[in-house]
Amino acid sequence: MIDTLIEKILFFQNPTVVGLDPREYLIPTHIKEEMYKTYGETPQALAKAYLIFNRAIIDEIYDFVPAVKPQIAFYEELGMDGIETYLKTIAYAKEKDMIVIGDIKRSDIGSTATSYANGHLGQTTIGSQKYTLWQEDFVTINPYLGKDSLEPFVDVCKANKKGIFTLVKTSNKGSGDIQDLVSDGTPVYLHVGKMVEDIGTDLRGKYGFSSIGAVVGATHPEQAKELRKALPHTFFLVPGYGAQGAKGKDIAHTFNSDGIGAIVNSSRGIIGAYQENDTFSEKDFALATRQAALDMQQDLLSHVQMKG
Amino acid sequence: MIDTLIEKILFFQNPTVVGLDPREYLIPTHIKEEMYKTYGETPQALAKAYLIFNRAIIDEIYDFVPAVKPQIAFYEELGMDGIETYLKTIAYAKEKDMIVIGDIKRSDIGSTATSYANGHLGQTTIGSQKYTLWQEDFVTINPYLGKDSLEPFVDVCKANKKGIFTLVKTSNKGSGDIQDLVSDGTPVYLHVGKMVEDIGTDLRGKYGFSSIGAVVGATHPEQAKELRKALPHTFFLVPGYGAQGAKGKDIAHTFNSDGIGAIVNSSRGIIGAYQENDTFSEKDFALATRQAALDMQQDLLSHVQMKG
Repeated sequence: MIDTLIEKILFFQNPTVVGLDPREYLIPTHIKEEMYKTYGETPQALAKAYLIFNRAIIDEIYDFVPAVKPQIAFYEELGMDGIETYLKTIAYAKEKDMIVIGDIKRSDIGSTATSYANGHLGQTTIGSQKYTLWQEDFVTINPYLGKDSLEPFVDVCKANKKGIFTLVKTSNKGSGDIQDLVSDGTPVYLHVGKMVEDIGTDLRGKYGFSSIGAVVGATHPEQAKELRKALPHTFFLVPGYGAQGAKGKDIAHTFNSDGIGAIVNSSRGIIGAYQENDTFSEKDFALATRQAALDMQQDLLSHVQMKG
Repeated sequence: MIDTLIEKILFFQNPTVVGLDPREYLIPTHIKEEMYKTYGETPQALAKAYLIFNRAIIDEIYDFVPAVKPQIAFYEELGMDGIETYLKTIAYAKEKDMIVIGDIKRSDIGSTATSYANGHLGQTTIGSQKYTLWQEDFVTINPYLGKDSLEPFVDVCKANKKGIFTLVKTSNKGSGDIQDLVSDGTPVYLHVGKMVEDIGTDLRGKYGFSSIGAVVGATHPEQAKELRKALPHTFFLVPGYGAQGAKGKDIAHTFNSDGIGAIVNSSRGIIGAYQENDTFSEKDFALATRQAALDMQQDLLSHVQMKG
C-alpha cells in the first residue's frame, strides 16, 4: 500500500493529504439551511450536510491531491448518521481513486486489536461469508499498549495490502508530557519510533519504505529531523501544517533528499479556506479549498525537491 | 458519576464489571442459526445475534452486577449494524439501571478530543438542538498524546456528571514496552498515573475518589500495589481477571482496606462460561453467565473486605 501512496504523490508531485474534518461551523450556510429545512436540526441533517461538503471538496481536489484523511471523531459525534457519512465519504474518495487515511487512533490488544484491524483494513468473517466494511487504505494507531497491540494490525496489513500510521511524536503542545520522557538516554517517541521501524520490516516496498508508518508532527521540526534519520524505512504522516502553525520550511526535514518520505496533512486551513479568503463567496467554498490546496502544494514543493 | 458507581458496588457488595465482548464463536448456535436463516450470513444478522445475546446476559446479571463494559471493537468490526447493536446494548443496560463503561480507548487532541467527549459522554449540538447520542457513563481513554488530550474529557465529565478511565498500566504482556520505560527514576505508567490523579482533582466525590479513573491490569499485581498507594484519589478499572489469568488474590492490592477503590472486569470467562461448563446446555448460556458472575463475586469478596 505504501508504494501506491508514494507513486500517487510522485505522479501528482504533491505530498499533501487533505483532512476531511467537518464541523457545523465549517459548513456553508446554504448547505446547512437546506438540510435543516428538510430534516430538521438533527444529526441526520448535519451528517448529510457533511457528506455534501466532503463530496464537493473531493470533486475539486482529486485531480491533484493524492489522499484524504477523515477524522472519525467528528463523524462519531453525530452517532449512527455520522458513521454513515464517514463510510460514504470513504467510498466516494475511493471512487475518485484517492487514497484514504482513516484518522481513528485506535488502540487495543490481542483479539480486540484484530477486530479493529479486520473491520477497518481487512475483512469481517460472518459464517462462510467475508465482508469489507470500512474500507480505509491506512488508519492511524496509538502505540501506548505496546508491540503486541500493533502486531495484529501488521498481520492484517500484510494480508490485505493495507497500511497504518502509528503515533510517534504528535503535533500538539502536550505531546511532550509522555512522548518526550527520556528513558535510557532515549525519548519515548524514539523508543516507539524504533518499534515501528522494526515491526514494518516485512512490509517494505520498492521505495524502501514500509506500509507501517509513523505520525510525526510538523510543529516539532528538530524531533522530526532526528526521527527522519533514525527511521529510514518509516514513512511519515505529518500533521500540524497550516492552522496548527507549521509552514513549508518546518516540514522539509521530514523528507529525504529525493523528496520522498512524508505526506503532510492540512485540515481546517484547506476545507475552511473560504472563511479566510474574500476572493471566494461562501457558495464557492470548494473552489477556495482547491486554491488553498494548490497554494499548499506550491509551498511544500518550494521546500522539498521531489524527484519526477 | 464515580459516587454512583461506588454506591452501586457497595449496595450489591460486588466490585465486578462484565465485559460484553461478543464474537461469532461465543454466540450460541440456536441464536446464530435463527438470525442467519432470517437475514442471511450478513453483518446485520450477526449484529442482531449479538444484541439478543447481550440482552439475555444483562437480564441475568443486572440484579447483582453493577456495571457492563462493551468493547466497541467487536461492534465496529460489523460496521454500521454493529454500531447499532453497541448503542442498543447501552440503552438496554441503562434501562436495567446498570452503569455502562464504553471500552473505546479513544485518543485525540483539542477540538477533536472534545468531539469524542461530547459524542460519547456529553451532548452534540446541532443548530439550536442538543442530542445525547452514545450514552456511556464512562469511557476508556488512551493518554499517549499527553495532558491536553485528556483535559477536554475532564471538562465534559464535569459538565455532564460522567467519568473516564485512562490507560495507565494495561494487562497485556507487551504493556511494558512503553509503560515500563523508566524516566527520572519513575516508570512511564506512574508518570501517567500522576497526571490522571492530578487532572481529576476537581471531580472528587464523597468517597474521596475522582470521576477520572485509571485502567490498571490485574496481571501486574506489584505495579497495581504501587499505583494504589501512589494514586489515592484515582479509582481503578481492572482488566485481566479470569480468561487473561489473574485471580482474586491478584486483585486484592487494587482495593483500599475498606474494599473500595476498584472494579474488576471479566469478559470471556463470564459471557462464554457455557462453553467451559458441562452443567449448562448451550441454550442456558445466560444462566451459565449468571453462575460464573456469582462465582467471581464470591472469589473477589474472599480477598477483599468490603464495607457494608
